[in-house]
Amino acid sequence: MARAGRRPGQTETREQILTAARTQFAELGYDGATIRGIAARAEVNPALVHHFFGTKEQVFVAALQLPIDPAFLVPALLDGPKSQFGERFVRLFLTVWGNADTRAPFLAMMRSVTTNEQAARMLRQFLERHVLARIAAELDVPQVRLAAAAAHMVGLAMFRYVIGIEPLAKAGDDEIVAMVGPVIQTYIDG
Amino acid sequence: MARAGRRPGQTETREQILTAARTQFAELGYDGATIRGIAARAEVNPALVHHFFGTKEQVFVAALQLPIDPAFLVPALLDGPKSQFGERFVRLFLTVWGNADTRAPFLAMMRSVTTNEQAARMLRQFLERHVLARIAAELDVPQVRLAAAAAHMVGLAMFRYVIGIEPLAKAGDDEIVAMVGPVIQTYIDG
Repeated sequence: MARAGRRPGQTETREQILTAARTQFAELGYDGATIRGIAARAEVNPALVHHFFGTKEQVFVAALQLPIDPAFLVPALLDGPKSQFGERFVRLFLTVWGNADTRAPFLAMMRSVTTNEQAARMLRQFLERHVLARIAAELDVPQVRLAAAAAHMVGLAMFRYVIGIEPLAKAGDDEIVAMVGPVIQTYIDG
Repeated sequence: MARAGRRPGQTETREQILTAARTQFAELGYDGATIRGIAARAEVNPALVHHFFGTKEQVFVAALQLPIDPAFLVPALLDGPKSQFGERFVRLFLTVWGNADTRAPFLAMMRSVTTNEQAARMLRQFLERHVLARIAAELDVPQVRLAAAAAHMVGLAMFRYVIGIEPLAKAGDDEIVAMVGPVIQTYIDG
């Protein structure tokens, strides 16, 4: 059934690894899962997992089809003065979610966390320890405040892009940044 | 198959009306649907729809199993000084969502709006015109700011109750009100 121009062997191996990764993360949590364990379950060499995806964090992002890759997100958020974090934070999320392609995995993630307790647990552990904790430490802001700011952005995405609540949906990115940026900043300034 | 102590006739009629209502709201939107149209589709007398549910708004809340009934929510939010709206708003949502029984329909709603464009459209029209517009007018606040505040609460509920992000999940209601209330208030004060 192979079509010209495709290499089904590679695609299948990739899928096999992602399926194994989803199972391992679900059973052991983010911290418990290992590249070696995922490779063993997928019956491939661990080097192949590295080759296809890179780090464990990147396997996780690919397996859960996360709409945001912290390897890109965290440095981008921290690149600039703390006093402009709110604006940067809002602008970055609007850019990521303004694109319909990156919105699809966000929707999928929202569906899976509202449907499936295991998916919620995996995402929780990952967000808490590997995204929010890192940013909170770098900014020297209590993690609870950063979590509240992130929660605000998730709700904004639900209203603006998923439900399409007006006038949030039709407002330009600049207008949203000007309105929400200072609000996020109050979480940072404390 | 009727069991002792139940009145299957009534339960079936109720379900028939709710099914008809879901179809009418989906096809015609919130504003286009009427009690008369819902009754006709359910093949019952319109008086019976009123008898079981009350107003069109209440039929909508029941049909979509909304986690918040605006007939209760809107007056409760407006009952107090504008300068304490933020605190009242956060406290009210925490009370509603802190209860596992009222959280179930919230989850169901999040699932349906992320799955189904029709559900999103119905909820959008209802929230925009019949919840947010009313509160914005009463408070004399631009609707876009009130929508952003409501979006924040929805994101907070996702993080605190659905994904369970710490330390948001374990924080007490008072701590959350003290942190998020002033942030919501900045949307109101402008």
